[in-house]
Amino acid sequence: MTKRDNRDLLYGIHAVSATLEAGDRPVQTLYILAKKNAGKKLPRSLSGIVKAAEAKKVPVICLSAGEFKQLIGDVVHQGVAAHAAPFPFVSLEDLLMPWDAARHIPFLLIADGVVDPHNLGALIRTAVCAGVDGLVIPKDNAAGPTPAVVKVSAGAVEYMRIARVTNLTRAINRLKDKGIWVAGLDRTGGKTVYEYDLTGPLALVVGGEEKGIRRLVREACDYVMAIPQAGVVESLNVSVAGGVAMYEVCRQRREKI
Amino acid sequence: MTKRDNRDLLYGIHAVSATLEAGDRPVQTLYILAKKNAGKKLPRSLSGIVKAAEAKKVPVICLSAGEFKQLIGDVVHQGVAAHAAPFPFVSLEDLLMPWDAARHIPFLLIADGVVDPHNLGALIRTAVCAGVDGLVIPKDNAAGPTPAVVKVSAGAVEYMRIARVTNLTRAINRLKDKGIWVAGLDRTGGKTVYEYDLTGPLALVVGGEEKGIRRLVREACDYVMAIPQAGVVESLNVSVAGGVAMYEVCRQRREKI
Repeated sequence: MTKRDNRDLLYGIHAVSATLEAGDRPVQTLYILAKKNAGKKLPRSLSGIVKAAEAKKVPVICLSAGEFKQLIGDVVHQGVAAHAAPFPFVSLEDLLMPWDAARHIPFLLIADGVVDPHNLGALIRTAVCAGVDGLVIPKDNAAGPTPAVVKVSAGAVEYMRIARVTNLTRAINRLKDKGIWVAGLDRTGGKTVYEYDLTGPLALVVGGEEKGIRRLVREACDYVMAIPQAGVVESLNVSVAGGVAMYEVCRQRREKI
Repeated sequence: MTKRDNRDLLYGIHAVSATLEAGDRPVQTLYILAKKNAGKKLPRSLSGIVKAAEAKKVPVICLSAGEFKQLIGDVVHQGVAAHAAPFPFVSLEDLLMPWDAARHIPFLLIADGVVDPHNLGALIRTAVCAGVDGLVIPKDNAAGPTPAVVKVSAGAVEYMRIARVTNLTRAINRLKDKGIWVAGLDRTGGKTVYEYDLTGPLALVVGGEEKGIRRLVREACDYVMAIPQAGVVESLNVSVAGGVAMYEVCRQRREKI
């Protein structure tokens, strides 16, 4: 996030399209890599985004390769960038709100200290595909929904409700008060994900890349479960482990219907 | 792979440790980022590798940061690199061999045109954790087990038997002749992974990042199955989708025991 001017400089085709489409934060300017007045000669991938921007009355600025580099540096931008309002976090209470009314069985993801933007982006992309209702992340020592994460998630971040909290343990206790079971995912967990009933209101906690779930957070969980693994390798990547666990929740819920 | 001198320059702590430990290809030289005669002052992560190399009579060369950069360029090497023999591919027949004797139920992965080293590395890491017996990849238009892939896989590549074939469709037909069911994974698949019995001899086919499984390969599959997904995002990343499917195989097999 560009702290200085309090707006995000998003980049990448999927990332910018999703931001325009989701509409949860205003897009101020769209930048595309094209000659001035390229008009209808734009490649199709870009013309779709330009149309979407114009429909929302977002000004479109054509930049040369050099100007693009000056704007955004050396990232894989696919010829598209946009200035947008900062990511619209929700509060934990907002995240809890809709279920009271809708009789929906909540399914949350909690990422405790995931620091690699690739892992956070991949987790959010999977979470959207798996139908997760919202994500809780800590304010400190963790990656947030930066433009890099939006890019890695192929824009999925724009469709995910994210609450950023100061104290994750307190947030977990609040979820438990609301009747949500909190399940940690850790290779040291006693039983496997296949041995728990995951069909009720659930928050799945995944830990950081190096150390897994922190001790206090782990102790706040109702239980800690593992994905069975052959011993020879370091252990599953957090984004894959999270994906397997999220889909196990989906599977059990589908089977129960 | 360094084609010129027909050996691989591996890098990264897990990658090099795994290569030494797995022992499937000779390591010729170990390079570490350290002062000459650093001896016992090495950080623990490096001293373990040096011991492993010495036990195998692999010469250890200490390099300065500048020399390291000259050797390997700008990669995240964590202070460790090694020259090793090229990756020891097995033939498709070798891959099929052990089950005849061991009455083991085969579980293979086929990657059709996965080009991103990160995705191939992540798939192999998950495959090792999920107990996959071997991987089949095409010779052309696909990533192979390069040093970058070994690094991404945290060394898991060294524990995976990999056959590289000229014609993937013919390889699939050979597997089918041997009584192995070949299941494609594609979001356009009719039924979901949860609706098939995956407990028999199985080869799971995942497709490339952009286009999925190629038409002829798809037609050679016994069936094509999907992972259920909320429609809003582009679709799951191939390494996550592959991970979810591999673990669904594990789950079903565990349940059957």
